[in-house]
Amino acid sequence: MTFRPLHDRVLVRRIEAEEKTAGGIIIPDAAKEKPSEGEVIAAGEGTRDEDGDRIALDVKVGDKILFGKWSGTEVKINGEDLIIMKESDILGILG
Amino acid sequence: MTFRPLHDRVLVRRIEAEEKTAGGIIIPDAAKEKPSEGEVIAAGEGTRDEDGDRIALDVKVGDKILFGKWSGTEVKINGEDLIIMKESDILGILG
Amino acid sequence: MTFRPLHDRVLVRRIEAEEKTAGGIIIPDAAKEKPSEGEVIAAGEGTRDEDGDRIALDVKVGDKILFGKWSGTEVKINGEDLIIMKESDILGILG
Amino acid sequence: MTFRPLHDRVLVRRIEAEEKTAGGIIIPDAAKEKPSEGEVIAAGEGTRDEDGDRIALDVKVGDKILFGKWSGTEVKINGEDLIIMKESDILGILG
Amino acid sequence: MTFRPLHDRVLVRRIEAEEKTAGGIIIPDAAKEKPSEGEVIAAGEGTRDEDGDRIALDVKVGDKILFGKWSGTEVKINGEDLIIMKESDILGILG
Amino acid sequence: MTFRPLHDRVLVRRIEAEEKTAGGIIIPDAAKEKPSEGEVIAAGEGTRDEDGDRIALDVKVGDKILFGKWSGTEVKINGEDLIIMKESDILGILG
Amino acid sequence: MTFRPLHDRVLVRRIEAEEKTAGGIIIPDAAKEKPSEGEVIAAGEGTRDEDGDRIALDVKVGDKILFGKWSGTEVKINGEDLIIMKESDILGILG
Repeated sequence: MTFRPLHDRVLVRRIEAEEKTAGGIIIPDAAKEKPSEGEVIAAGEGTRDEDGDRIALDVKVGDKILFGKWSGTEVKINGEDLIIMKESDILGILG
Repeated sequence: MTFRPLHDRVLVRRIEAEEKTAGGIIIPDAAKEKPSEGEVIAAGEGTRDEDGDRIALDVKVGDKILFGKWSGTEVKINGEDLIIMKESDILGILG
Repeated sequence: MTFRPLHDRVLVRRIEAEEKTAGGIIIPDAAKEKPSEGEVIAAGEGTRDEDGDRIALDVKVGDKILFGKWSGTEVKINGEDLIIMKESDILGILG
Repeated sequence: MTFRPLHDRVLVRRIEAEEKTAGGIIIPDAAKEKPSEGEVIAAGEGTRDEDGDRIALDVKVGDKILFGKWSGTEVKINGEDLIIMKESDILGILG
Repeated sequence: MTFRPLHDRVLVRRIEAEEKTAGGIIIPDAAKEKPSEGEVIAAGEGTRDEDGDRIALDVKVGDKILFGKWSGTEVKINGEDLIIMKESDILGILG
Repeated sequence: MTFRPLHDRVLVRRIEAEEKTAGGIIIPDAAKEKPSEGEVIAAGEGTRDEDGDRIALDVKVGDKILFGKWSGTEVKINGEDLIIMKESDILGILG
Repeated sequence: MTFRPLHDRVLVRRIEAEEKTAGGIIIPDAAKEKPSEGEVIAAGEGTRDEDGDRIALDVKVGDKILFGKWSGTEVKINGEDLIIMKESDILGILG
């Protein structure tokens, strides 16, 4: 079963902290709003501008991202916990 | 008796959890905002952009969707419980 | 005496529950926000887009509609209780 | 002394309930937000759209209107109690 | 010393009630929001529309105006109490 | 060390009350929102309109201005207390 | 590991107060909202205007900036504490 996010939404798999390599991103415990690391699993086709044309998303499937810890809606698809969020909830892309 | 949603609204039949097949979508009980699964029964013609042209909806009749649990307005049409919601309340399409 | 709604407003006569036929729309009592059934008696000419052109309404006189129970402003015209509401308060058209 | 409303404002003389003829408009006492009846005494030239062009008002001097009871600002001009309100506060035109 | 208001602001000298002639404007004491009478002393060049062009003000120096009693910011220029307000705070022009 | 404000921001040096000459601006103590006098030290290049073009500021370096007392953010640059504010916080230009 | 901010976001390294040279910027302790000094480490490609075109950022990598103390989201990348913020949170550029 697949899931196709609508508009500017993306489907994200959270990358748990224990998967991180040395020298990688470590989220500080005491930060007021701690971002999480994740991977984009599926992406919408983008919203439309005022003329009705699509504005493509800046992230694509496979991108490693940082997002606000409380962003999005949690779902379980094919037994896996995933998060549906808007692209604007994504802080940036890790490379 | 039929119902034609206005603008960017859709008419949705909720798909109950017991209808889900193994390996399908299971909504986690403890999620802060649990999405529901449904099927689009009728769809509006879309809102208008700044020039007055229609912006067609991205969902069509028959689409299986995920939507926020508290989205929309509940109605009973021909004895069936249905939900009227805006397309923006739809998280994505299951395929 | 007639009443001509301005802009995107419509004049609506509420259809009471006892007028509904078997198999018709029955509003569930326990719904969090129960929509009502009504008939459009008069409709405005529409608002204007950014260029000053009219955007015509999607409903016309005679349409049977569903609208949010608390929508609009109640008036009595020629001894009849009616409701003035905006088209955006209308959930859809019954046919 | 005259008064010329600015932009999308109109100057309105309230029509008291006792002036109403049989079969005319009677405002229900128990309505949650009771509209009032009035006559347009002076009207502004309209606001401007995004290109700076005027958008003319839909009401003109002499129109009998319904407006929200608490709309506008009360003034006394030449000894007469009048109300300055925006056109968007007008529910519709009686004819 | 002169003062040139920016954008859509105007500089206004309040006209006190005792200066009003018989048959002129008298502000009712019990009004919920009492407008005041004033004279425009200086006016800005207007804001810009979406293309960056100026939208000229509808009031000019010398106009007698009505404005909301609590509108604007009080200043003392050359020993005189004046008010800086936006044109949108002006209800209309007395003539 | 210099400071270049971004977009529609300006850098302002507050002019203290004791520097004011006779006949100049005196801010009334009891005003509900007392404006302050200042001088523009540096100005941004302006924001962009909907087509991405710059909209130049209406104030320039050296302008004596009035601004809302609580406007902006206080900084100390090269040992001097200054204020960074948006042009929209400026009430007008003294000349 | 690198981090590429999305849209109008930038990645900023905070410059601590003890690094400041004599005559440089000293943030007053008692300011109601104290700005901080930082350096831009990475910058997004900019948001899009209404036609879908990119609006480039006004800051670039290496710029020394002032930003609101509570702006942005703190992250630790490659063991270093950094801040992700929007360009609009930047007050200006130090030169």
